Amino acid sequence: MSEVMPPKPAFLFDLDGTLVDNVYQHVLAWRQALESVGIELAVWRIHRRIGMSGGLFVNALFREIGQPINPAEAKRIQKLHGDFFAPLAKDIRPLPGAQELLQTLSEQNVPWAIATSGHMRSASLSIAKLGVDPAQATVITRDMVRHAKPDPDLFLAAAAKLGVDITRSYVIGDSLWDLLAAQRARALGIGLLSGGYGRDELQDASPYRIYNDPADLLAHLDEVGVREAI
Amino acid sequence: MSEVMPPKPAFLFDLDGTLVDNVYQHVLAWRQALESVGIELAVWRIHRRIGMSGGLFVNALFREIGQPINPAEAKRIQKLHGDFFAPLAKDIRPLPGAQELLQTLSEQNVPWAIATSGHMRSASLSIAKLGVDPAQATVITRDMVRHAKPDPDLFLAAAAKLGVDITRSYVIGDSLWDLLAAQRARALGIGLLSGGYGRDELQDASPYRIYNDPADLLAHLDEVGVREAI
Repeated sequence: MSEVMPPKPAFLFDLDGTLVDNVYQHVLAWRQALESVGIELAVWRIHRRIGMSGGLFVNALFREIGQPINPAEAKRIQKLHGDFFAPLAKDIRPLPGAQELLQTLSEQNVPWAIATSGHMRSASLSIAKLGVDPAQATVITRDMVRHAKPDPDLFLAAAAKLGVDITRSYVIGDSLWDLLAAQRARALGIGLLSGGYGRDELQDASPYRIYNDPADLLAHLDEVGVREAI
Repeated sequence: MSEVMPPKPAFLFDLDGTLVDNVYQHVLAWRQALESVGIELAVWRIHRRIGMSGGLFVNALFREIGQPINPAEAKRIQKLHGDFFAPLAKDIRPLPGAQELLQTLSEQNVPWAIATSGHMRSASLSIAKLGVDPAQATVITRDMVRHAKPDPDLFLAAAAKLGVDITRSYVIGDSLWDLLAAQRARALGIGLLSGGYGRDELQDASPYRIYNDPADLLAHLDEVGVREAI
């Protein structure tokens, strides 16, 4: 038998819609924020932009409605989003299998990290819902890198902080933007349907594999090279 | 030139996500209603059931979580959904192009109706937002038929009330359930992406055509046989 064994992979997770069930609340909070500055945009179009960084997101919306980008206004909209999100966020839950998946990876000494386009302020609330101690886990937020998804910076920073090679890593996300960032980072992308995107939209970004949610990924860990130690 | 001219078509519209931008608010209201009776279900899975009748919907959810169907509990969940929907519904808007589309059809003497799985109580609020007088328009609600979508009853009743042949009608909806009902009614289905479903999910129900939203359908009325009178 050959001694050439591929190393165990590392897992770099998006947060919103990937580990935590909060995408629809974010969508409606953006809807209210935009409405309150006089921008009307259908809710499904906002959903399709979720997962980009707040800044890129607002710029994309300005472009979509044909308005020039106004950085002060963009900042105000981001602030309003946070305000409208807070009351909607109180009953947010982890996605099915999210806690078990992270626990299983930890037990099997598979390195994992969370890399989110959100800022630490809101991300730490969601991470707490996962039963993960933000001080113990490896977490990269928007505040810590220059560019957010679909740029690869967040995932590259997560791999660097774990001390793993990005090319042996999987990037797990619910949005097109995660999977595009995965490709640009030269990681393998895994799409989850749990953010509410259609399968074809994720497939357009050519992921290695698509699963329903963290529970479904957990049930198929052998497909991504994680095996029980013998 | 042949005298054989196909008659002008009739248009049978779904309401939520098709003419009115309220799907995501409905999704979160169902989420809160289920949560308050101890049923935890990820939000994207609820979204995929939207467009079924409330009764079928709740039954499908019971099935999905492997619980026996409890009619009294189902009724209570539907009542709770209405309660949670009310505060979310206050800033609901028509989808882009919805008002213009209905007005254009009326101007061109193309018969149209609204056929919704919702009950008259909530549907009349949404219809008012379209600038349509519910007393003038042809509206079929859940209260008026035996079975809701994906059964064809709602669309058959709408065609009958308009006095048009269902086989010369288009059924326009944002969900799989509308398009399945269209097929069972022998109408041609037109899918709209404005309810937040992925294109492939709608394509799975083999519609005649898929557009982004009412504005996009309005811009392509010639593809569905509506032409300016000469």
